[in-house]
Amino acid sequence: MKGILYGIGVGPGDPELLTLKAIKTIVGCDIIAVPDSGSENHTALSIASKHTAKKPVLSLELPMICDKLDLQKKRELAAEAICAELDMGKNVGFLTLGDPMVYSTYSYLHRIIVSNRYTAEVIPGVTSFCAAAAALGEPLCEGSRSLHIIPALYDDIENALKLGGTKVLMKSGKKLNEVVDLLCKKEISAKMAQRVGMDGQRLYQSITTETDVQADYFSVVIVSDNEDG
Amino acid sequence: MKGILYGIGVGPGDPELLTLKAIKTIVGCDIIAVPDSGSENHTALSIASKHTAKKPVLSLELPMICDKLDLQKKRELAAEAICAELDMGKNVGFLTLGDPMVYSTYSYLHRIIVSNRYTAEVIPGVTSFCAAAAALGEPLCEGSRSLHIIPALYDDIENALKLGGTKVLMKSGKKLNEVVDLLCKKEISAKMAQRVGMDGQRLYQSITTETDVQADYFSVVIVSDNEDG
Repeated sequence: MKGILYGIGVGPGDPELLTLKAIKTIVGCDIIAVPDSGSENHTALSIASKHTAKKPVLSLELPMICDKLDLQKKRELAAEAICAELDMGKNVGFLTLGDPMVYSTYSYLHRIIVSNRYTAEVIPGVTSFCAAAAALGEPLCEGSRSLHIIPALYDDIENALKLGGTKVLMKSGKKLNEVVDLLCKKEISAKMAQRVGMDGQRLYQSITTETDVQADYFSVVIVSDNEDG
Repeated sequence: MKGILYGIGVGPGDPELLTLKAIKTIVGCDIIAVPDSGSENHTALSIASKHTAKKPVLSLELPMICDKLDLQKKRELAAEAICAELDMGKNVGFLTLGDPMVYSTYSYLHRIIVSNRYTAEVIPGVTSFCAAAAALGEPLCEGSRSLHIIPALYDDIENALKLGGTKVLMKSGKKLNEVVDLLCKKEISAKMAQRVGMDGQRLYQSITTETDVQADYFSVVIVSDNEDG
């Protein structure tokens, strides 16, 4: 019998934002797999560390930014390493920050592994943008208004900001100063949460009037909808 | 000392998708508050029932659709009822399906209560669209692509479907047939999850080719992005 791959969302940072299902699934797995992206080193593993104790850890080299062909190759190698475990009947729990279906490395592996006729199951998690909204006390969407999640890698943030409804800018990281400059220029007010539920959490009720905005990979910018829903 | 209001996301339906923090907060509250919307009767309460045992329940009349002025009045009455408890030093846990900052009645009450100088804290939860994506095995967003969450109440769904990136249509309910007709007309393929993690869960890998699509309030339609991220 082949093993099952579980893509497990561990939530945005606070170990208490793990779900019962995530914990149960982690405890039931034979091996824990985590992406090793260099910079964001095993964050998901440390969030879940209370529950992974003593299980073998398969660390997969999955950089977030690199040459496209090289990235595809690395994903295939990671998928192969997981399949080797599944072939031995091991259940593998792949940990992802936030939710496995929202900007995660897991979704690429899921696709490859399912297309190779293995069974994969996804355990959803709390997203960083919901945690940011909670920490800031800022509703993301109400009534008939829409919500747009825009990654900083997005081609045209200036145009995205023109959309009706709330805009959430994710993973601004090094582009954060650029985003703040754009918001200032357009006179758009915005809030921001960084490292929510992690060490060094910072909340900004207005990033355009703030003098000391520091870039951080775990930055969520919320541009609220001012129209009446 | 005044009590604290906690807006607690109980997740999309499966009681195992409650977070440790939600459970801990529920257990620590003196009173549980829930919206009574008529149709969606105490769903959040039944999801969390294992943890609310024997606590008094404050059921608040908060219909989802009614006259706008009437709705505002009902929200103010609900906020008053909560404040009366807070004034007596009681901690109130208001339960919401999914996440409290995503299309929930809680966000309106949060605003009123915070503006009246009470303390309110939000515990984020797993959203229905993340649970739908997990159940369908369908990634919501990858790489540089955006994600748009569109409520069925939205004025112009036809235009919203033209946005780049993944589109999630929420709470289609009675408008579901209209949405399906539109998708068929535009030859847009879409997946759907209904009542994820609840009794009567239904998954549709292709709603436009399905002959038996039933309307349900808890419907999440996912129109994927076909472009290469």
